[in-house]
Amino acid sequence: MHLITIVNIISILLILIAVSMIFPAIWALYFKEFSCFLTFSTIIISVLIVCCVIFCITKNKKENNLSTKDGFLLVSLSWLLASIIGALPFYFSGAIPSFVDAFFETMSGFTTTGASILTNIEALPKSILFWRSLTHWLGGMGIVVLTVAILPLLGIGGLQLIKAEAPGPTVDKITPRIGETAKYLWFIYVGFSALETILLLFGGMNLYDALTHTFGTMATGGFSTKNSSVAHFNSAYIDYIITIFMILAGINFSLHYKLLTGNIKEIISDSELKAYLTIFIVATLLLSYDLTKNHFNNIWNALRYGSFQAASILTTTGYATYDYEKWPAMSRTILFLLMFIGGCSGSTGGGIKVIRVFTLFKQSLIEMKYLIRPKGIFTLRLSGSVVKKDIVYAISGFFFLYIAIVLTVALLVSLEDVDILTSISSALATVGNIGPGFGKIGPTENYAFYSDFSKWVLSFAMMIGRLEIYTVLVLFTPHFWKK
Amino acid sequence: MHLITIVNIISILLILIAVSMIFPAIWALYFKEFSCFLTFSTIIISVLIVCCVIFCITKNKKENNLSTKDGFLLVSLSWLLASIIGALPFYFSGAIPSFVDAFFETMSGFTTTGASILTNIEALPKSILFWRSLTHWLGGMGIVVLTVAILPLLGIGGLQLIKAEAPGPTVDKITPRIGETAKYLWFIYVGFSALETILLLFGGMNLYDALTHTFGTMATGGFSTKNSSVAHFNSAYIDYIITIFMILAGINFSLHYKLLTGNIKEIISDSELKAYLTIFIVATLLLSYDLTKNHFNNIWNALRYGSFQAASILTTTGYATYDYEKWPAMSRTILFLLMFIGGCSGSTGGGIKVIRVFTLFKQSLIEMKYLIRPKGIFTLRLSGSVVKKDIVYAISGFFFLYIAIVLTVALLVSLEDVDILTSISSALATVGNIGPGFGKIGPTENYAFYSDFSKWVLSFAMMIGRLEIYTVLVLFTPHFWKK
Repeated sequence: MHLITIVNIISILLILIAVSMIFPAIWALYFKEFSCFLTFSTIIISVLIVCCVIFCITKNKKENNLSTKDGFLLVSLSWLLASIIGALPFYFSGAIPSFVDAFFETMSGFTTTGASILTNIEALPKSILFWRSLTHWLGGMGIVVLTVAILPLLGIGGLQLIKAEAPGPTVDKITPRIGETAKYLWFIYVGFSALETILLLFGGMNLYDALTHTFGTMATGGFSTKNSSVAHFNSAYIDYIITIFMILAGINFSLHYKLLTGNIKEIISDSELKAYLTIFIVATLLLSYDLTKNHFNNIWNALRYGSFQAASILTTTGYATYDYEKWPAMSRTILFLLMFIGGCSGSTGGGIKVIRVFTLFKQSLIEMKYLIRPKGIFTLRLSGSVVKKDIVYAISGFFFLYIAIVLTVALLVSLEDVDILTSISSALATVGNIGPGFGKIGPTENYAFYSDFSKWVLSFAMMIGRLEIYTVLVLFTPHFWKK
Repeated sequence: MHLITIVNIISILLILIAVSMIFPAIWALYFKEFSCFLTFSTIIISVLIVCCVIFCITKNKKENNLSTKDGFLLVSLSWLLASIIGALPFYFSGAIPSFVDAFFETMSGFTTTGASILTNIEALPKSILFWRSLTHWLGGMGIVVLTVAILPLLGIGGLQLIKAEAPGPTVDKITPRIGETAKYLWFIYVGFSALETILLLFGGMNLYDALTHTFGTMATGGFSTKNSSVAHFNSAYIDYIITIFMILAGINFSLHYKLLTGNIKEIISDSELKAYLTIFIVATLLLSYDLTKNHFNNIWNALRYGSFQAASILTTTGYATYDYEKWPAMSRTILFLLMFIGGCSGSTGGGIKVIRVFTLFKQSLIEMKYLIRPKGIFTLRLSGSVVKKDIVYAISGFFFLYIAIVLTVALLVSLEDVDILTSISSALATVGNIGPGFGKIGPTENYAFYSDFSKWVLSFAMMIGRLEIYTVLVLFTPHFWKK
């Protein structure tokens, strides 16, 4: 274990977080929220001083080669400490008086979940809400790099197949590779964000709303600055813009990079993208059919609200333009099923991920072929290449653990008296980084009613889900801590 | 495909079913239900004549060697046709006026599910109710032989590891092996049934109730002859006897055989048995704790009702001694989680099966070890022997398909306006062959309210679940029908 290097890297991360608090501080000045400005300034200065000192102390003692084990610890600690530091403005400004609540809200932000404990969002200072949305955007930035560049190196849950060219489990080259890859990915991320902001400004939003809702979209987070979420703006144009960008944010960012470099052939042959778009289109059509027939009596409304909600749940964003709990049973069930899937690998979306579900689906078809012809030879192909058995193996293990963790979280949460639908969908919505669910945590409700114990459990559920489960769980095995 | 041989074997099966209708016919005489006696007699004679003719015609033309493909078709057709013939007494006696309902009830019987469409059970003629319970017992008999002797030969979903000595996928030796194995298994099945009947008679039940409730227990079915299920008898002794026999019925029958032959060592080292009993004991303790604290305020009642319901859901029996939907949230959630597990392989219990869940759990721990030490060598051991990778592979495929089918059934059922908890638990309770669930199909309710379409869907869900999914699904692949 190279603890000093880990501390060193994390101190850089926290410095970056403190620096990014300058933006909400500027908004605080703009909105004349002076006490918030003071809070932000104090936190920025304190964190900068402490972290710079730690950085300088550890700088010269650090070892160069991080091991895989260090990787797990580093990634888990990053999200944990970022959430603790990120919670300070909520707590010290008095906007969220309980620290558990503030931690929950920040973890929800950095994990791009969007689950909230706020009952009246609009009552909070605007600069605080800006910080809340910014945690999404920063978290999404982290996730893109994490899943495209770091996790494949750690060999997590079959995700190594995203990027066949990723090197083996030696992490020596991690720093130069991350630097290079991150540059391109962030360029795309920032580019899309700028584009969405401009398009939302055209739709009549002010800069503040356009930015915060862009953060929520591009990170597939789902925090809004309005109590009624995106429904507040009541504009078909805004709904469709956000739908499109949610879908874009749910696509593997290395595909976006290929698009930029004109590598159309690889994009067209990408199995995950095809599966993802198919699921979205089929879900939208089914929802539109059901909603036209049984709810809106108007195909255009059905299409608008149906496509928005399908994109929002599939990509694990969690924005709402309608109280979908009032929709007919089939529509509700479709949304519930989408909660099991999630976005593409290498996107900001959470959940099990399309590639995993699709691989397991194809594998189960192949199993059937083997049953009929035990001596046949059948290979599993994705995007034109053969998938190794070990990868399917890793994906199967991931799928089982995912379901097992959802059920465990549901059990822990049920220690306080909630109905099964609420406990199951709370677990699905946090482990899957979606945000809202069904029952007491529906799109018009929130997580405020939960006890502190449940809020801790759900916060860690968000972290475990966001970091592809294994990253966090390995830390709890005795094997990890053995020399 | 050896269709003539398949027809021949199925005609024998239907002859046996017709012969077994003699027992309810005798009860019809005893209870002076003469119109029922007439119905049974007519059906017995008609089925016997038709099937004997078919048997004689096909007898001389039959080929000896069944292939694996024939096995899938034979097993699926057996349950389908048995349910059609078995539904006739309900339909023609007028006890269940709709054929869909009668088919649903019979499929629920033969698959040992115990899901019912009857709103007032006690209003039915007693001979008809005896037949209803008898379908459980016959179905359970079929399942034990199927899972211990036939499915391993067909190589279904990793269950080949139950019986390491089973030969490869050649089915040449199937007939003599089944005959021999079946004899011992049935001996145990009949022996346990006789013992339970006697013990229930001691508890004050009459012979009719003792037999019907034994059928429901040993088959892990759950049909009762009383509207309030086992709660009707209001006896702690009866509750505990049924709890013990549910647990026994949920154990692999080849272990019972080993017990008889004094092979204690193998029983003690059996991983599945240990996991199964651990799950049962932990669930009982958690339920008892929660129920003592939040419901009964009495540890003995908590223990009695808690252990009964844990055994009932874990073994997929579905008997109820209490309306568990009125229990506190944690107890309800525990029961919901147990619905995902099921009994041991080679028992009459349904569900995913303990061995599969346990294998996947151990596998996910091994995956974590690999993440920490990519070059390490870790082997998965069950009951002291190394489990081959291909078996874990098959189990993973099974687990994915199981969850996918549960969600698909939930979606189909949600086409009529039911809440998510009802649709999900209907799917879990039928695919897992449990019977009652939560929401509108709780322990005091039934499946009567569903539309005919949903009843067909749920009937096939029971069949797909009972026949370990693959057996039925392969029939729907184009690959199966290719020459």
